[in-house]
Amino acid sequence: MDITGRTRVFMILGDPIAQVQAPALFNPIFRAQGVDAVLVPAQVSPDDLGGFVQQVLRAHNIDGLWLTIPHKAAVLPLLDRCDRRGQIAQAVNALRRNADGSLEGALFDGEGFVKALDRFEVSVAGRRVLIVGTGGAGMAIAVSLAERGAAAIALFDPENSRSAAAAARINAAFAGQPARTAKTADAAGFDLVVQASPLGMEPGDPLPLDPASVEPGAVVVDILMKNQPTPLLRACAERGARVHPGFEMLTQQIPDYLRFFGLPLPDRDRAADVDGVGMSMPSAPACGR
Amino acid sequence: MDITGRTRVFMILGDPIAQVQAPALFNPIFRAQGVDAVLVPAQVSPDDLGGFVQQVLRAHNIDGLWLTIPHKAAVLPLLDRCDRRGQIAQAVNALRRNADGSLEGALFDGEGFVKALDRFEVSVAGRRVLIVGTGGAGMAIAVSLAERGAAAIALFDPENSRSAAAAARINAAFAGQPARTAKTADAAGFDLVVQASPLGMEPGDPLPLDPASVEPGAVVVDILMKNQPTPLLRACAERGARVHPGFEMLTQQIPDYLRFFGLPLPDRDRAADVDGVGMSMPSAPACGR
Repeated sequence: MDITGRTRVFMILGDPIAQVQAPALFNPIFRAQGVDAVLVPAQVSPDDLGGFVQQVLRAHNIDGLWLTIPHKAAVLPLLDRCDRRGQIAQAVNALRRNADGSLEGALFDGEGFVKALDRFEVSVAGRRVLIVGTGGAGMAIAVSLAERGAAAIALFDPENSRSAAAAARINAAFAGQPARTAKTADAAGFDLVVQASPLGMEPGDPLPLDPASVEPGAVVVDILMKNQPTPLLRACAERGARVHPGFEMLTQQIPDYLRFFGLPLPDRDRAADVDGVGMSMPSAPACGR
Repeated sequence: MDITGRTRVFMILGDPIAQVQAPALFNPIFRAQGVDAVLVPAQVSPDDLGGFVQQVLRAHNIDGLWLTIPHKAAVLPLLDRCDRRGQIAQAVNALRRNADGSLEGALFDGEGFVKALDRFEVSVAGRRVLIVGTGGAGMAIAVSLAERGAAAIALFDPENSRSAAAAARINAAFAGQPARTAKTADAAGFDLVVQASPLGMEPGDPLPLDPASVEPGAVVVDILMKNQPTPLLRACAERGARVHPGFEMLTQQIPDYLRFFGLPLPDRDRAADVDGVGMSMPSAPACGR
């Protein structure tokens, strides 16, 4: 579908931006569905985020924004509303302007992750999980794993002081108080290991955790979109772990984005919707301010 | 070419926006030239123009803006530099962020118009011209017609108080003091009539001028993009005038936009460039502030 003056515009905000997969994923869906919309990238510096978001959403045909690194958490203070998962994780993936002018955010990363586990036939309930990297995506995953009944969720991030507060929010929200911070990335004793740090994006990056510490029967998921299979996944696979790349997590979020922006769903996702698989949680009244 | 995170983004700003032709015109050129760029529409209210322009051009992959009604003149105070034609007309079609952070504008409408006349084999030198509607496009056309040696240029606009000041700027800039304001849209005595008002965009619009006043041998150009041939052109053609729609004026500006944004030209335009046909005028140091 060609872009005209009637085309609705969406933007994905990140910094850097070159690595984002969403335009290549969603624009063909818009075309296939006959939706006159386009998703374009915008490389927005952290200092410019607030002004950019407020200003572009005043344009009458710019209907919403995708957020990626480093904006998933930083956008929270701009929101009037966001869903419960977003409030607990203090991160959102998407932001829309409602008819009343309010800005509403929603978090899909964690649901995409657990739906990807469903596809991989990896159960969550009772699992002992190590999450390495507690940026927006890592926190989103922690929230959805807690919601699905993970027995223990250890959060490791050498640079993220938010981990302890996030663990407290998760424990307040879900039964069993599963979350705690971890002092190291030692994977011993965990049967699900989630690599959610940026390590592995650049060629010279160190491994985010020692593959020798991974239990032979454990499941390891590296959510990086680039360089798959990552050096970590290759090393873990050699040691007999079940390894999965992150792309399926993004694919599984497609219906959530489309629903959030009021766009039509492909048939296969509409079926899933009827089953309740993709049901979103009700919005809470305020988020981050 | 599919949109990815590496795609450079351009926007066309207008209000309304549904009628704009530029995305349908330029995106196929980008594809054909292998340029990883996309032009998307943005409906920006006049009150939001300043904030929107400043903010979106801070995004590192948003390289420039097309301006259309009603923003061609209103954007002037935001510019650090613009070309001489833009200064005289006090209107620009395009705006870019230079490497030093400065915002630079340029005006192409008038050159597109006179190049379209070249294609129609209509000479300009010595002509007596009536221009009805002196918004950004009408003023741009007046400047380029003066530059090409029109003998007289009458500017009529019932709602535009800028006409007299614009006529004075044209007379200061070009030999022969050709420009003056007109009190009516009476076309008697003119051998080139340019319809540059918005009248004709909506079905119930009155005719912008009385076709009975048009000289039988006159050339009439209606620059509206919509509803061509317009009721005016049909009525004038019935009276024996030579009539032309406005689309060629837009087509003729394509190389100017590509050059301004540093994008590669199609082969046919590169040849024209070597001939000097498309040479742009040197930038002047400041414009509008």
